[in-house]
Amino acid sequence: MKPFSYEITARDGTARCGAFYTPHGILNTPVFAPVGTRATVKALTPAQLKDLDATLVLANAYHLYLRPGDELVAAFGGIHKFMAWEGPMLTDSGGFQVFSHGDQRKVDEDGVTFRSHIDGSEHRFTPERSIAIQENLGADIIMAFDECSVPDDRRYVEKAMQRTHNWAQRCLDAKTREDQALFAIVQGGIYPDLRKESADFIASLDTPGVAIGGLSVGESKEEMAAMIETVEPGLPVDKPRYLMGVGSPEDIVNGVIRGIDIFDCVLPTRMARNHAALTRLGQLNLRNAVFREDKRPIDTECSCYTCRTFSRGYLRHLTTTKEMLSATLISIHNLHTLIELVRDLRSAIQENRIDSFSKDFLDSYQKHRPPEL
Amino acid sequence: MKPFSYEITARDGTARCGAFYTPHGILNTPVFAPVGTRATVKALTPAQLKDLDATLVLANAYHLYLRPGDELVAAFGGIHKFMAWEGPMLTDSGGFQVFSHGDQRKVDEDGVTFRSHIDGSEHRFTPERSIAIQENLGADIIMAFDECSVPDDRRYVEKAMQRTHNWAQRCLDAKTREDQALFAIVQGGIYPDLRKESADFIASLDTPGVAIGGLSVGESKEEMAAMIETVEPGLPVDKPRYLMGVGSPEDIVNGVIRGIDIFDCVLPTRMARNHAALTRLGQLNLRNAVFREDKRPIDTECSCYTCRTFSRGYLRHLTTTKEMLSATLISIHNLHTLIELVRDLRSAIQENRIDSFSKDFLDSYQKHRPPEL
Repeated sequence: MKPFSYEITARDGTARCGAFYTPHGILNTPVFAPVGTRATVKALTPAQLKDLDATLVLANAYHLYLRPGDELVAAFGGIHKFMAWEGPMLTDSGGFQVFSHGDQRKVDEDGVTFRSHIDGSEHRFTPERSIAIQENLGADIIMAFDECSVPDDRRYVEKAMQRTHNWAQRCLDAKTREDQALFAIVQGGIYPDLRKESADFIASLDTPGVAIGGLSVGESKEEMAAMIETVEPGLPVDKPRYLMGVGSPEDIVNGVIRGIDIFDCVLPTRMARNHAALTRLGQLNLRNAVFREDKRPIDTECSCYTCRTFSRGYLRHLTTTKEMLSATLISIHNLHTLIELVRDLRSAIQENRIDSFSKDFLDSYQKHRPPEL
Repeated sequence: MKPFSYEITARDGTARCGAFYTPHGILNTPVFAPVGTRATVKALTPAQLKDLDATLVLANAYHLYLRPGDELVAAFGGIHKFMAWEGPMLTDSGGFQVFSHGDQRKVDEDGVTFRSHIDGSEHRFTPERSIAIQENLGADIIMAFDECSVPDDRRYVEKAMQRTHNWAQRCLDAKTREDQALFAIVQGGIYPDLRKESADFIASLDTPGVAIGGLSVGESKEEMAAMIETVEPGLPVDKPRYLMGVGSPEDIVNGVIRGIDIFDCVLPTRMARNHAALTRLGQLNLRNAVFREDKRPIDTECSCYTCRTFSRGYLRHLTTTKEMLSATLISIHNLHTLIELVRDLRSAIQENRIDSFSKDFLDSYQKHRPPEL
């Protein structure tokens, strides 16, 4: 298959399964991507990620530009070789991070000037600069430089959306590598007319994939669902759709039934470092004293290495003694939970039972309390 | 073979290879044991340890008594099941830790009263208590409760040695489990006559193995070698000899050629957390800026996962960004280095070339500067 072609392999309502061809392998969608911000999925080796059947892994242009520098990564043969991940990779453009981490940012039509969160040094990102950085990093999928604005100021959101559209076109013009797919990003906050306008514009661009940005930034679950439903009809059917930064179990299910193909989120690994295990039925805080003598695994129905091997009581011991192994073991479980969830969603779509699967899943997710009790 | 029998399989001068039979498998000696103080070898899963061909793993009675409690570990079926290590295990008696970590310790003939380094609570260890704790933990090899005294006060060292002998006998009397081997410990500081006396006494006890304690506590390399040479002739030939807490590459080689069979040390994993890679030719501090663009592995001749997969430049990036993965990857390399070293020492003994092997090794170890230059 041609690189970056997207083949829809099954449909069930708005939900779809597909195969996206990248220079580093096929992405079977829906897919959940672990986040490796600084060229490492925290506390996990690439071998452990492979054992988890992870396919797509994210890294971040902002963080890698600052440390160790995108040119250094290029000198090592690119991000895949640098971090030893042989599968498909995606880099975020830095747009979101410049706004969330960069200090004293000044946005103008041309780009953003900001100070590094590490040492206060001044830097400037433009669409062209972001593409140059992402070309140095060399991921399979790169993202357009966008402005992710706060959702409660319609006037500003509209301005930021227009800028995001201009920047998407400039990214497309700046791009030189044939072995990278640029995805452009729909913005528009929580305003349906802006989201529709943005979807139409982004759909009109000649990119192998599209993304929805600016969600999971404080809006309600209902608002997120409504925005996806507003945007989806405007998106090309034959391109993968990536819902950026979203990845709780219920958000994934809610996204897939509304036609989303790609998800990523720091949640599973960040939660793991905070001693929280993610299950299909909610969260367990493994520091809780209730687990002291608990011989059960995190989830008795889970088949991950952690659940096959360790008790809640042992994991609690690791968390209370601040042992690094706890982050590794809980990350393995949390990522497994989401990777298995998208696998089950793919099966449900292929077998035309996504309605009952998603209904059952969301019902039990809402009904069940965390099995701590 | 009978549990805890020790079969000498090869000899070359004073050096020997042997097989020590434990309920959790055979220890081929010389062996290096990674340290899992609190029931985890820091930053490594048991699966990673197994990939490293680790056999014996240590844990610590003092730390596990305080957290999570030895009775809790017993309720989980013992230390092997608790931490999911299926191979042989050894627990230290807590003797060394009570003296090095415990606050406000008071030693009397019966035992030691001390305060926890965690919360200041008061506790008391006696030989009987240490054995009860170690029986709850359930390692294959358990250690006699001893007093490790500072080497510069001969009068005190002698007193502590006598106490250690009395306590060793009391440990032997207190022991009830048939599936655990108690090793008694030779003390005596840096005083040859005391060391000889201690070796004779410890050799006279009916234990399946013996240990040398109180070395690598500040004395010179020459003093350590002299003490091993003083003690060795007094030790039974047909029991494994464990040199406690010793594990730099040159100390291991120096120990093996003087008849030592078992080593353990926190060095390889502690160094890894401090960004230092251990090689046969010295150390590399991977935070050093000189490694920024270095595409070579830590050691071009090393076959560990880390060296097969990652560059010094990538490891430097992980250390400068304080990523947890650096501790995991450098620990894998450091443990591999020592485990491969004892494997090579076993081959050299089997092939009657321990003299040339050790001479070459120690020569190049002393001659070479770390390959940072």
